[in-house]
Amino acid sequence: MKKKIKKINAAILIIGNEILSGRTQDKNIAFISNWLNLKCGITVNEVRIIPDKEKIIAENVSILSKKFKYVFTTGGIGPTHDDITAQSISRAFKVKYEYHKEAYKILENYYGKKKFNDGRKKMAKMPSGAKLIYNPSSAAPGFIIKNVLSLPGVPSILNSMIENCKKYLIKGLKVYSQTINLYTVESNISKQLGLIQKKNKKYVEIGSYPFFRLGKIGVSIVTRSTSLLKLKKVNKDLRKLVKLKKIVILNH
Amino acid sequence: MKKKIKKINAAILIIGNEILSGRTQDKNIAFISNWLNLKCGITVNEVRIIPDKEKIIAENVSILSKKFKYVFTTGGIGPTHDDITAQSISRAFKVKYEYHKEAYKILENYYGKKKFNDGRKKMAKMPSGAKLIYNPSSAAPGFIIKNVLSLPGVPSILNSMIENCKKYLIKGLKVYSQTINLYTVESNISKQLGLIQKKNKKYVEIGSYPFFRLGKIGVSIVTRSTSLLKLKKVNKDLRKLVKLKKIVILNH
Repeated sequence: MKKKIKKINAAILIIGNEILSGRTQDKNIAFISNWLNLKCGITVNEVRIIPDKEKIIAENVSILSKKFKYVFTTGGIGPTHDDITAQSISRAFKVKYEYHKEAYKILENYYGKKKFNDGRKKMAKMPSGAKLIYNPSSAAPGFIIKNVLSLPGVPSILNSMIENCKKYLIKGLKVYSQTINLYTVESNISKQLGLIQKKNKKYVEIGSYPFFRLGKIGVSIVTRSTSLLKLKKVNKDLRKLVKLKKIVILNH
Repeated sequence: MKKKIKKINAAILIIGNEILSGRTQDKNIAFISNWLNLKCGITVNEVRIIPDKEKIIAENVSILSKKFKYVFTTGGIGPTHDDITAQSISRAFKVKYEYHKEAYKILENYYGKKKFNDGRKKMAKMPSGAKLIYNPSSAAPGFIIKNVLSLPGVPSILNSMIENCKKYLIKGLKVYSQTINLYTVESNISKQLGLIQKKNKKYVEIGSYPFFRLGKIGVSIVTRSTSLLKLKKVNKDLRKLVKLKKIVILNH
């Protein structure tokens, strides 16, 4: 990983009819976002989920790659007809869609020459100039071209590959986060919470999320900041408010 | 004469830093998409997840409401400072952000005059001209303005409200779906599958999704079509292929 600069953002582009139709519950967004946050200090600012259509994929890659420092795509790099991510990204960047020599060798070695059929060969086709993201669990590599990193859709395989993205990323400042869970309702504290947010607008982001647990209603107050000092100060203010309102804090 | 096919699409706009940061696993996308599919014959064609920022919400509402027949937003209609969906949608449509009389009454009745504080009153503020989507579980209503339907982010509350969206929606043709689960790998069938898809491109969409179950590798072949007849025909072809390749079908 390269040198630190301040705030670095990313977008995630989920490619797949199965997520859009509701058939499959996505697990990759939370995983990638958490990993980028904790391991790289990179914040995900937008996610899009789109169908397996070449024109639509190409358009979205083009838009998001201009708008954000990095774009992570998931899905559509397997051997079947509906796997069209690599050719769509080639179209977006107006480069050739062709065999990547190293990827070809990796896959040929993995399957053996006899079993290296057309579907499997397809997984070695990438945008010209792409670099590989190695896949320790099922061989077929992902790739990076410009600022777009392409990963598979199967969560267990994606998870095994994510560390291999690191060398291509510039690290941002770590975002610290603290959560207080309260047995109260949002509207009991919304006014004061708004004031605390206003006072600390520049450095600390305060989120308020209602929950139901063991039949009781509660609110999680999540604070996030790149400054640990400022985060602690805001949490001190929050605890004062909680004390004043005689609210019970729920242990984690 | 060509038969008219009424395809109706929608987009989902998830508003919330907690989903983007990976802190919270979204459950609303799959729920809304499945409900629209099964109950309304409406297909979700795009999903976006964006932060709690007024300008960004307004921009996305504006773009998606032009691009799709319906837009469902989730999140950001509660009582706290980070709940800014209603004012952002007002901005997108250039209408006033003001108290909705009926919503105000519903909330005042629910909380009682004494406990109806500023945070709670905020939940009655909506884009001018909005109609209510009633909330049987926690009173605070969602709303619809033009083709944008705004629902809360808490899944249990959203789920309780979804049926109340129905009266605002035009129904599309039902999309039928069939799944065959096979004990094989994708690249064993990718070529033939591609040919079957090509032959039926116009009416049937074939998706191929690898899975791991009980330590075995498999593939789910999902077919979708508005024509049950064409769907059955394709599934007959698929079963022929499965037989030819001597692949074991996994019982559901």
